[in-house]
Amino acid sequence: MSPEIIFDPYTKLYSEASTLVRSSDIRDLLSITGRSDIISFGGGLPYIGGLPPEEFSRVMNDVLREGFTEAFQYGETGGLEMLKSRLVEVMAEEGLSAEPEHILITTGSQQALDLIGRLFIDPGDTIVMEAPTYVGALAAFCPNGPRITTIPLDDMGMRVELLEEELQRADASAPKFVYVVPNFQTPAGVTMQKSRRDKLIELAEKHDLLIIEDNPYGLLRFEGKPEKTLASRAPHRVVYLGTLSKTVSPGIRVGWVMAPAPVVEKLAVLKQSADLCSSSLNQMFAEAYLSQDIWKKNLENQKNIYRSRRDTMLKSLEKHFPKEARWTHPQGGLFIWVTLPEYLDTSKMLPLAIEQKLAYVPGTAFYPDYSGANHMRLNFSFPPEEQIVQGIKRLGKVIRKEIELYHSLGLDHP
Amino acid sequence: MSPEIIFDPYTKLYSEASTLVRSSDIRDLLSITGRSDIISFGGGLPYIGGLPPEEFSRVMNDVLREGFTEAFQYGETGGLEMLKSRLVEVMAEEGLSAEPEHILITTGSQQALDLIGRLFIDPGDTIVMEAPTYVGALAAFCPNGPRITTIPLDDMGMRVELLEEELQRADASAPKFVYVVPNFQTPAGVTMQKSRRDKLIELAEKHDLLIIEDNPYGLLRFEGKPEKTLASRAPHRVVYLGTLSKTVSPGIRVGWVMAPAPVVEKLAVLKQSADLCSSSLNQMFAEAYLSQDIWKKNLENQKNIYRSRRDTMLKSLEKHFPKEARWTHPQGGLFIWVTLPEYLDTSKMLPLAIEQKLAYVPGTAFYPDYSGANHMRLNFSFPPEEQIVQGIKRLGKVIRKEIELYHSLGLDHP
Repeated sequence: MSPEIIFDPYTKLYSEASTLVRSSDIRDLLSITGRSDIISFGGGLPYIGGLPPEEFSRVMNDVLREGFTEAFQYGETGGLEMLKSRLVEVMAEEGLSAEPEHILITTGSQQALDLIGRLFIDPGDTIVMEAPTYVGALAAFCPNGPRITTIPLDDMGMRVELLEEELQRADASAPKFVYVVPNFQTPAGVTMQKSRRDKLIELAEKHDLLIIEDNPYGLLRFEGKPEKTLASRAPHRVVYLGTLSKTVSPGIRVGWVMAPAPVVEKLAVLKQSADLCSSSLNQMFAEAYLSQDIWKKNLENQKNIYRSRRDTMLKSLEKHFPKEARWTHPQGGLFIWVTLPEYLDTSKMLPLAIEQKLAYVPGTAFYPDYSGANHMRLNFSFPPEEQIVQGIKRLGKVIRKEIELYHSLGLDHP
Repeated sequence: MSPEIIFDPYTKLYSEASTLVRSSDIRDLLSITGRSDIISFGGGLPYIGGLPPEEFSRVMNDVLREGFTEAFQYGETGGLEMLKSRLVEVMAEEGLSAEPEHILITTGSQQALDLIGRLFIDPGDTIVMEAPTYVGALAAFCPNGPRITTIPLDDMGMRVELLEEELQRADASAPKFVYVVPNFQTPAGVTMQKSRRDKLIELAEKHDLLIIEDNPYGLLRFEGKPEKTLASRAPHRVVYLGTLSKTVSPGIRVGWVMAPAPVVEKLAVLKQSADLCSSSLNQMFAEAYLSQDIWKKNLENQKNIYRSRRDTMLKSLEKHFPKEARWTHPQGGLFIWVTLPEYLDTSKMLPLAIEQKLAYVPGTAFYPDYSGANHMRLNFSFPPEEQIVQGIKRLGKVIRKEIELYHSLGLDHP
């Protein structure tokens, strides 16, 4: 159940081929995403074309007119106070009550993951992650040398009963933290249900666990009732990560951590040596934008676009993917997770897909031990609907051909 | 000559009081700088009031109009290609010839220092730094557990002959790199002279050394002839750090590294897990701004302001500081370095200065072993001239009082 890997902090990048490869995965995919002749279901890009340039420009001009000197100067390491207060309002949208002094602004939530890895993980420490899990969290945590215990997901989120078994194992060492993406998880698109959340909090209290709750997509719910955040249930046990990358824009690199004050203080020290402070200009833009009601209207608009794209992708999958394939039905977020027959390897299949001018992320990217080869992550937020229809049709063909090849070679008859 | 300290990477922040204190130093000073009733010679802030808001706004509006979608989207980890080409032009201003593919854009050059520390330093590795040296470089390097060999500065820059002695010591281990700020060094304000540069390059070739050349202030020369960069003399031996924080604005967090391709590639992998990419919006703003001749005109204007403030500070020091004090006469940059009698401790004196509504950075912040207690760093770029005159007058009084106290207690007669 729990493949464990150890990274050697002494050899670092020099011999750390797996870390290098892991990081290169996303970077290579971002490169592919940039090629205009490719229909990309890779990446995790929001659709910027759905945002109103004139409103963004108006907000930016307000900032430049009223806050020029501050916008182009260094800011406090912890972030702009006014922005922290706005983010309290943003979190309230998800029923989370927060205090500005528990917030640290970060350069995107990737920086929060990096700082958390550096603060909490000493070489050989055990941490718990979902399987599959966010590739950027793996990239941030692995260089610090953790042993990673993975807990599988199903349609209801992390299988918390397996975490309980793991914690009760006689030889188990106490994990430094449990990292989860409870809402519309990347890559799986699933949401942790109430019973699982209840159980996770219960285990955290019982075993004195720290939870890292990464919630980039919570406000991108298309339907259904939101589940309460873990942070609102047990604020003393949770380090909560938010970001404006998916709800406003990733180009401004504004994320945040909410945590108990001593953790915020330590993360701020680390942030200072990492980049001194995040861009004042971008923080002021974010603050000014969030101060106006248009942000909610624009978010609604983005959600409408994404919902429609998700529906188109689900319909296309139904129509064009072979009966052997299964996939998740996310109620929000950016991703659908596809499971193919065990004998298929989506990494090996990727070059064939790219030949058909198609990209996706192979499942192996999301497992610390590079298992999960029969999965793929599909992004539906970025490609327009006609591309989704075309792309899924072509991808279905590639998969069918692979299945046929497998059968024709008699590989199914050992 | 070379105080060495070892940091334990296993205990990290939990027990790493000295790292915590070190980082807090700058952060606390930034807080003081923010208090409007304080005349601050602390910090290293450029003077944003000297920049033209209408020109910045025009450039920003061009970016929003012509590149909206790209500006608010994720970008490549390595940075915007067009910006790299512009930075080649910026470096050419200092006689440095570069190729865009040797450049990595970073979130300010503090991020470059952080990535370099993580890439090159394994626990117990020796690195060489100037004494005094940049406090942010100490904060970035120390958590990786180096042994730091310090080489003192004089008015001609690093005393390279002492580095030679150090390298020839039988028991010396080969340093991973030599970190220098050759132009208008922070904190000392001194510039490494040609003969020293020649010798450093010679030593680098002889002992197979890597040099980290941090050059944030090179284009802020008020008078005299520029020295050639180390990178232009030995590109294969130098990792060069540039930033727009002092020549354009620190609020946009745009810095860069120029290095041999394999180093750039590895730093990019580290950057990806640190913050995925730097702000596209800010990179596009920087590119657009640097594409216009106004940036050079504005830089000239900034230099005129800083030259005049430096002159005012030098004159005020001459007038108000006691005869026991000495200070550097920088030909550019942001800082003057003051040396007081050995028996004075500028850290202990700081509360008295703050009582007089004055701030500076005590010398200890710039030494890995917290020596240098009789020094202080004074910033002249940020405070207006009337504040410089007032502040130096008041600071002179505080120092005289301390000297008198020392003598009156008979502490000078052991």
